[in-house]
Amino acid sequence: MTTLSPSLFLLFLLPWAVMPVVAVIPRPNAPVELREVPSPDLEPDSALLDVELSEVCGTDVYLQQGRLEGVPYPLVPGHVSVGRLRKTRGTLLDVEGRVFREGDRVTFLDVHRTCNACWYCLVAKATTRCPKRKVYGITYGLDDGLCGGWAEQIYLKPGTRCIMAGADPETFMAGGCALPTALHAVERADIAIGDTVLVLGSGPVGINSIILSLLRGALRVLCIGAPALRLTAAAEAGAGDVLNFEEYDERERLEWILERTNGRGADATIEATGAPDAVVQAMRFTRDAGRVVVVGQYTDHGPTSAEAAFNPHLDLNKKHLDVRGCWGSDFSHFYRSVQLTSDPVRSAPWVALKSKLSRYSLTEAN
Amino acid sequence: MTTLSPSLFLLFLLPWAVMPVVAVIPRPNAPVELREVPSPDLEPDSALLDVELSEVCGTDVYLQQGRLEGVPYPLVPGHVSVGRLRKTRGTLLDVEGRVFREGDRVTFLDVHRTCNACWYCLVAKATTRCPKRKVYGITYGLDDGLCGGWAEQIYLKPGTRCIMAGADPETFMAGGCALPTALHAVERADIAIGDTVLVLGSGPVGINSIILSLLRGALRVLCIGAPALRLTAAAEAGAGDVLNFEEYDERERLEWILERTNGRGADATIEATGAPDAVVQAMRFTRDAGRVVVVGQYTDHGPTSAEAAFNPHLDLNKKHLDVRGCWGSDFSHFYRSVQLTSDPVRSAPWVALKSKLSRYSLTEAN
Amino acid sequence: MTTLSPSLFLLFLLPWAVMPVVAVIPRPNAPVELREVPSPDLEPDSALLDVELSEVCGTDVYLQQGRLEGVPYPLVPGHVSVGRLRKTRGTLLDVEGRVFREGDRVTFLDVHRTCNACWYCLVAKATTRCPKRKVYGITYGLDDGLCGGWAEQIYLKPGTRCIMAGADPETFMAGGCALPTALHAVERADIAIGDTVLVLGSGPVGINSIILSLLRGALRVLCIGAPALRLTAAAEAGAGDVLNFEEYDERERLEWILERTNGRGADATIEATGAPDAVVQAMRFTRDAGRVVVVGQYTDHGPTSAEAAFNPHLDLNKKHLDVRGCWGSDFSHFYRSVQLTSDPVRSAPWVALKSKLSRYSLTEAN
Amino acid sequence: MTTLSPSLFLLFLLPWAVMPVVAVIPRPNAPVELREVPSPDLEPDSALLDVELSEVCGTDVYLQQGRLEGVPYPLVPGHVSVGRLRKTRGTLLDVEGRVFREGDRVTFLDVHRTCNACWYCLVAKATTRCPKRKVYGITYGLDDGLCGGWAEQIYLKPGTRCIMAGADPETFMAGGCALPTALHAVERADIAIGDTVLVLGSGPVGINSIILSLLRGALRVLCIGAPALRLTAAAEAGAGDVLNFEEYDERERLEWILERTNGRGADATIEATGAPDAVVQAMRFTRDAGRVVVVGQYTDHGPTSAEAAFNPHLDLNKKHLDVRGCWGSDFSHFYRSVQLTSDPVRSAPWVALKSKLSRYSLTEAN
Repeated sequence: MTTLSPSLFLLFLLPWAVMPVVAVIPRPNAPVELREVPSPDLEPDSALLDVELSEVCGTDVYLQQGRLEGVPYPLVPGHVSVGRLRKTRGTLLDVEGRVFREGDRVTFLDVHRTCNACWYCLVAKATTRCPKRKVYGITYGLDDGLCGGWAEQIYLKPGTRCIMAGADPETFMAGGCALPTALHAVERADIAIGDTVLVLGSGPVGINSIILSLLRGALRVLCIGAPALRLTAAAEAGAGDVLNFEEYDERERLEWILERTNGRGADATIEATGAPDAVVQAMRFTRDAGRVVVVGQYTDHGPTSAEAAFNPHLDLNKKHLDVRGCWGSDFSHFYRSVQLTSDPVRSAPWVALKSKLSRYSLTEAN
Repeated sequence: MTTLSPSLFLLFLLPWAVMPVVAVIPRPNAPVELREVPSPDLEPDSALLDVELSEVCGTDVYLQQGRLEGVPYPLVPGHVSVGRLRKTRGTLLDVEGRVFREGDRVTFLDVHRTCNACWYCLVAKATTRCPKRKVYGITYGLDDGLCGGWAEQIYLKPGTRCIMAGADPETFMAGGCALPTALHAVERADIAIGDTVLVLGSGPVGINSIILSLLRGALRVLCIGAPALRLTAAAEAGAGDVLNFEEYDERERLEWILERTNGRGADATIEATGAPDAVVQAMRFTRDAGRVVVVGQYTDHGPTSAEAAFNPHLDLNKKHLDVRGCWGSDFSHFYRSVQLTSDPVRSAPWVALKSKLSRYSLTEAN
Repeated sequence: MTTLSPSLFLLFLLPWAVMPVVAVIPRPNAPVELREVPSPDLEPDSALLDVELSEVCGTDVYLQQGRLEGVPYPLVPGHVSVGRLRKTRGTLLDVEGRVFREGDRVTFLDVHRTCNACWYCLVAKATTRCPKRKVYGITYGLDDGLCGGWAEQIYLKPGTRCIMAGADPETFMAGGCALPTALHAVERADIAIGDTVLVLGSGPVGINSIILSLLRGALRVLCIGAPALRLTAAAEAGAGDVLNFEEYDERERLEWILERTNGRGADATIEATGAPDAVVQAMRFTRDAGRVVVVGQYTDHGPTSAEAAFNPHLDLNKKHLDVRGCWGSDFSHFYRSVQLTSDPVRSAPWVALKSKLSRYSLTEAN
Repeated sequence: MTTLSPSLFLLFLLPWAVMPVVAVIPRPNAPVELREVPSPDLEPDSALLDVELSEVCGTDVYLQQGRLEGVPYPLVPGHVSVGRLRKTRGTLLDVEGRVFREGDRVTFLDVHRTCNACWYCLVAKATTRCPKRKVYGITYGLDDGLCGGWAEQIYLKPGTRCIMAGADPETFMAGGCALPTALHAVERADIAIGDTVLVLGSGPVGINSIILSLLRGALRVLCIGAPALRLTAAAEAGAGDVLNFEEYDERERLEWILERTNGRGADATIEATGAPDAVVQAMRFTRDAGRVVVVGQYTDHGPTSAEAAFNPHLDLNKKHLDVRGCWGSDFSHFYRSVQLTSDPVRSAPWVALKSKLSRYSLTEAN
């Protein structure tokens, strides 16, 4: 696993099997193991899903490295997946009230019920900060059952939010977990028709942010990332111009942005890098009274460096800037993502992206 | 001047005089000098104002210390003032279309016309970032005429936005320039009815932010500031609880906040301190998915310190936080401020604040 | 019941009793009957509440008249109530995670769980339009158990959202169901500091809208309503000027508004009347680019009259007006309402309003 | 002129001439006349534009019919035009500060300076409701000079907001005045990614609303309009489904919508019809808690009919609906429109639309 590039998708192509096989991270920094797990008894209004595809994202790499808090090892990773309902018990409904049947191709929100009972859910209406939130493949461990996608089967607990998947599994997975994450970020970026958007980072969230910024009416999207291969993908996804940050220092990057924005900076910048200092640079690369969305800091990489030299007067107050952290995504983002990838017309960018995916089988998980 | 406390208001009580006397900062770090300046010829649709009161704010102290960019010394400070129209030429109208007459008591927006022709004015609609913005007493110098309030008279150039002042001069000046600044900040804080608001800083902007947060429907306002005298003023202005930051370190301040907010932090924090590190603390003192308005960084005090240890993962992204720089104020903020202080009922907090003002005459300017 | 004025609050002062007595509307247009109902067996995480006070609002009158759809008669009216927990089974938590104990004084959201599983709850985030919404005292009937406030006891089903009531019952009930309804309307009115707000209607929602508009920073609130007694209450609640609509026709009302708003109309108008034509008048009484919130049309009184002559060009499009329907309220509005009435300082307007309440016992329900 | 279809664009292909010829509406309901008008003396910072193309829109038809207020006949119609600068005096700058030169191809905002001095401009920030607003070709008449586009030349008064036109004139004019109008409407519709948008009307504003709703991230756009030819254009512009309102009554139209929206109605509806009753239908065709933008009521066609039967309870309040009038457009909308049509990629929908334009020369103006 340690050699995996977090931007390449790991896809499982699974034969059906009676005793489901799962890939387990037994503890931080240990190799992934294959195990056989007994098939669960279904509670009322639950289901068993035959996995067609799941994914590897950056989070899975951090899980393997033990960098996230509150993870109940041993754990089956894989939080966004798609497959077919093998068995259902009771009634499973989608948000439209339609009944799911065995054999349906479905995906599901990785967040298994926010509580709808706490102050964050009910007063702040900030459900991604609900302290009771449980996530398949991240905060549900093997002790909670078949709760991760690197597996032949997933147990869909009662209350899991399922959606009919209209797309083929690979188109859906070309968006993966990065698509709803980027959709949330683009929503928070308040992009106006005709804006110039800067995307920092060219991983899955960055690429999806490029696609969605254009879908949202941006005139042009610029991208600073690395390595070259991903920048090619960024350009193919619609970025009007790209820059390899490994070849230019901060001052040169700023000049590059200013040259392309009449000397002002981007109207909105979406930071999707993982590097703390990039947050300060995002402020500088954005025009006065613009917006910065910070969606690249999902893991604690410590404080900004001394070189970043965050200056609240110059970087924030005098710029009259809006800086917006963006954590997780809720059902609405996931639902809209599935709508996009399931639509014959709107899914085009993800159909194009399919060719970029890497495919692995469960036995290749290490 | 160097001994002035920037939170105490310097008020000029002036007799009328034929040859206006002005107080001038001749160059950075030089003592203020009194000079006689010839009365200007009035251009069409301009006026001459007999100053009743002007103010000393933090900006004036920084002007004297030479800490602001683009200041055309020698300069007459004093950007917010009130007085009576001594002489008008042509027609001066307020925004309602009413004609001003000689003898009327008026105040005026210190920003003398944003250009209404540039990209920031017309496309971004961010007029406080208009590069052509000129400000009485700050970016207009003595060479531009009688353009500052530390003077017996001010020349109101054509296009100056005047408002009839319904309040007595001292009530109006109890708000001063801090009131529209705070009003803009409170507007950007998106305070909901029932919110708990934290104000960092107990200077004029802080005190006005307390008053306006309550006026906006906050359930409770907490204030961290210093020294004790100002915290008393903060409590009298309505703060439900205050803390002297000189007596508690960052960890203790955080605990103090959490104890008063069910362990979550403030719903909205208004940073009005002048200290770069306070911006990072403001993020930490605010609840997840809350809002921080940064309005205290009007001068460049350099980057945050190593101790601040700004961590974009913990302080911003995981918190799903909104951080909003707030620069200057526009006519709407100034107009609404004058409405408040001119209203018999709504002006009560500023009437109460009058007793806190210090009064000086022009001859005491040093 | 038919003689009840819907703006006068009916308050029940009840002795404790073993067999709870309830007041029942057996069917539309039938007199209210007192019945004895066996005390329920408590399900896990449910409770029994001894009612101290409940209320009569306009909705209850409409229930008696059979004017609402989907009401399962026989029905115990009374959807907002306050009392003490007599008995609990399992664990009841508030949104802060605090455990309720027997003897605690609590109130509860009349909406018993929106489903958190449908398109309106999860995608549109418009929970007040959730089709599965059930309301104590309105869409829960006697067959559902002790589900209305005109009773000695209420059965709090599992999942009922309870809040500790810090105020005495009468202060709380001075807000009643009108307070969260008005809070939602004022939230949607986007009142700016310094705005002039017009409230149409002087019933409970109107009076609470006056109080909350001032709490929100309005410079001045005007009210058009009737009869004189209620307009006195409106003035005491803070309305700067009031007009009796029974004495002035539409043209005169418009003139009255324009005289008080520099000829422009109100910045925001909150319609809380119940009369269809008032919605069109609300548009005309509001300035160009202002906001109208429609919160007074909770019952179907049919279409606007020919005299109303709704003209989309003049009344809406040319005015660049925002007209916002406002249905129900959610937990956040109720929670913030309880915070206000429970606060020693902020509750002042409702403490003052207590004297306006009428008090009845259960035996006076007809 | 009376036979003109307002959705067909009248385009002038003009040879240069020393004495400019203009087409004049001498008075309401009189035929258009060609006149020779002396070339103006240029004031400082003004220019003379050789018209390449101007347009006929619905407003021009209404001008000819005398249906608009405050029009100073005789009048040269044509408010949106594009051409080349023949002569400039002084300095003309665009919003970026770039100097225009003779020979440049430019367009200009038809609104000649809002005042930037009144309450609507400065406090409400609703510049489209500025009472001092003057519009080329509508509220500037022949007495004001060469102020309309149905002419060989236009006099660009000082302060006219010019923009460099990057597109060929026909691509630009395929958007015409309808594009910024629709852009403003789509902005106000708050379309979310994945929304279903309904456009009522298939004239120029309707077609541009379809294009821009898709550009904004709508999953699908439905259109109800007429006649068949325009519905074909609507489908070619991207509408997923269209309905001819001449063939279906209101009930059938509603069914058609509900079938395509899971029984809920459109997330957002843009009314661009000109028929008063369509505003009420727009409310009914929209889902609960959705948005209706009214942009089709630019002329007074009187009140809604008795058949419309506007019911504020059912159509507005219970639906928790937002209804937003949308008047005119400001520089930001025009600027963003020119950006779109000038961009090699983004202009594709308008390049496709060019073939739909009808072309006339000045001599064909009747």
